[in-house]
Amino acid sequence: MTYLDWASTSPPERAFLEAGLAQALEEYGNPSSRHSLGTRAKASLGAARARLLAALGGRQGEAGLVLTSGGSEADALVLLALLRRKDTRASAPPHLVTTSIEHAAIHEEVLLLQSLGIPVSFVDPQPDGRLRPEDIGAALRKDTGLVAVMAVNNETGAVQPLGDISGAIQRASASLGRREAPPLHSDAVQALGKIDFDPARLGLASAAFSSHKIQGPRGVGALWLRAKLEPLVLGGGQENGLRPGTENLQGAVAFAAAAEAATAGLGARLALARSLEARLIGGLGAMGALPLPLDRQAGDGRYSPWIVSAAFPGLSGEVLARALSDKDIAVSTGSACSANQGKKGRRVLEAMGLAEELGRASIRISFGPTSTVADIDLFLETVSSLWRQFRT
Amino acid sequence: MTYLDWASTSPPERAFLEAGLAQALEEYGNPSSRHSLGTRAKASLGAARARLLAALGGRQGEAGLVLTSGGSEADALVLLALLRRKDTRASAPPHLVTTSIEHAAIHEEVLLLQSLGIPVSFVDPQPDGRLRPEDIGAALRKDTGLVAVMAVNNETGAVQPLGDISGAIQRASASLGRREAPPLHSDAVQALGKIDFDPARLGLASAAFSSHKIQGPRGVGALWLRAKLEPLVLGGGQENGLRPGTENLQGAVAFAAAAEAATAGLGARLALARSLEARLIGGLGAMGALPLPLDRQAGDGRYSPWIVSAAFPGLSGEVLARALSDKDIAVSTGSACSANQGKKGRRVLEAMGLAEELGRASIRISFGPTSTVADIDLFLETVSSLWRQFRT
Repeated sequence: MTYLDWASTSPPERAFLEAGLAQALEEYGNPSSRHSLGTRAKASLGAARARLLAALGGRQGEAGLVLTSGGSEADALVLLALLRRKDTRASAPPHLVTTSIEHAAIHEEVLLLQSLGIPVSFVDPQPDGRLRPEDIGAALRKDTGLVAVMAVNNETGAVQPLGDISGAIQRASASLGRREAPPLHSDAVQALGKIDFDPARLGLASAAFSSHKIQGPRGVGALWLRAKLEPLVLGGGQENGLRPGTENLQGAVAFAAAAEAATAGLGARLALARSLEARLIGGLGAMGALPLPLDRQAGDGRYSPWIVSAAFPGLSGEVLARALSDKDIAVSTGSACSANQGKKGRRVLEAMGLAEELGRASIRISFGPTSTVADIDLFLETVSSLWRQFRT
Repeated sequence: MTYLDWASTSPPERAFLEAGLAQALEEYGNPSSRHSLGTRAKASLGAARARLLAALGGRQGEAGLVLTSGGSEADALVLLALLRRKDTRASAPPHLVTTSIEHAAIHEEVLLLQSLGIPVSFVDPQPDGRLRPEDIGAALRKDTGLVAVMAVNNETGAVQPLGDISGAIQRASASLGRREAPPLHSDAVQALGKIDFDPARLGLASAAFSSHKIQGPRGVGALWLRAKLEPLVLGGGQENGLRPGTENLQGAVAFAAAAEAATAGLGARLALARSLEARLIGGLGAMGALPLPLDRQAGDGRYSPWIVSAAFPGLSGEVLARALSDKDIAVSTGSACSANQGKKGRRVLEAMGLAEELGRASIRISFGPTSTVADIDLFLETVSSLWRQFRT
């Protein structure tokens, strides 16, 4: 299989999974137990957490890093806290600002919160797939309790200007006469180990990460937190009271190994990604396919080089992806996480103002650190042939 | 280390973890992806789910089995759904019936729901640690939206009469003139693979399970569901829309292997457990220590044979557990999941009406399928010597 669907998930690296497994067999005590096995497990968990924090720029928020079961749960932890604030702190529920291009982990949950009475403002991106900081600032209200903006869009690769967005939120808050700005949360699962990313430097209040996007195991993620929040889910008091459940040391160790490898090798990885991106976008242009957004060029810092969407006019993306799968090449149409939701998969492209027919004719190609020029060339050759064969 | 803290967590079995790891490396596609790698991963996930369901008696509820990150998340899924019903179905929040001896995963979350306006009735156990079905029935109201009763208490091993409780709920509902009885949820993490347990036969609406209690990996659990519920956390539509996040195939396969081994070998395991229980309770009695509840006998079907709490009058359980740890024997004082919560750990014993001083003088001994008579004998010898040495 030529695997070009890394934005959905990555092929796990055996060494990372085995490191986790070995530690789980050795330190099998419950980190919350007070006997020596528990104490040792707790120390190992702390070591894994420290390695993860170091991979995130090393600057620990007051509340540190909460280990979760994945990016979705990390996002939910922040969003659900709004429901708690709703009932305990104020008579009216807090207002939420987000974007129309968030991953389903944010988007679907925000729609549910909206149905429960939380007022939501959705900010649209520009045609280039990026949010304008001033548009986020303009959406702020006196009662805004949270702003959620993803770091890297999972369909277009658009890198959102989070530092500038953070600044715009500060300015808008001041001009609204607010005592403090609302926290800025970012779903950063496509950022960790893919682009240079430091949540503290960007002025974030929280950021969600996932292990399986960077060759770590499924079922593990993390929420970086600048300040403690009041979670809606309580239990055994683990993770500083922020996330209940016996700690997954095996997952934490494997995730830490994956995050270390991805961030330590980021320079070399990005060089590879930029070369693959250039070859891919060049090849697509040569055959007349359309990178999305339409003016996307290789080497443009506004986009993660790991993700390229492209339209093949006259051919359904669904059909093309299936035909490529039959030729042992894996790509996707939009997000795997909206696979059950029919046409909603094109929500992101339509929010950018792209014609619906181009969206329907598009696929997403995404790659990773073990991808090769040969993978890209095989893809280009195959897709060119399929397009000629099936286009209407 | 002589490990007698299996109720906190179990030493994972290498073969189960390796089975999960091998599958994760082979079927690395995202089960939600439509290419052939995704389809294969989805099929493998379905196979693991079917094995888990078979281990649970084979009778699938309409909504099947939702894979979660553990027992705590499975419990939370059911409890949080109440908040959704609160806002969308009725003007007043639904009433919740539970017990005063639930694990923190239920107890702490119920306290939070109560603070958010959900009325809660806590039913106390009898001195034997068991709930009376008629007491649960009597707590029912016309607006009760959920009843939550654990299957096996994690401190005393008391097996709750869930089938009779289910019947009492039906009768109480009918006499209240309700159209249908409220669903009965059970935190069953100490039941799976430990006692004969079939959620369908017991009349449950839902039951929460955990992998790491039966030598499977951490970070995996499941919610058995008779009928679909409306979850408070949405996202990518995974798990039939009930639990978002890329599916943890590695964890599911390892959990399925653990559940199969535990349930297939249940007869032999229970015979071992009963013999260890008899040796332990006999030895405790011979040295004058007090099994809790005070009338607990070996071989009593009201208790899981895997868990025994005992008081050593004149010696703090905390001190004793630490002294045992120094002698390389791991036991605990109550639940690991309340370790951060100070004196709350004795909540269960006090709810049974036990004198506070006996609770403070108690430890919990819990074992598993690889425990031996030699483990019990070494524990008895050591604890007897420590008690003589340190009692006041």
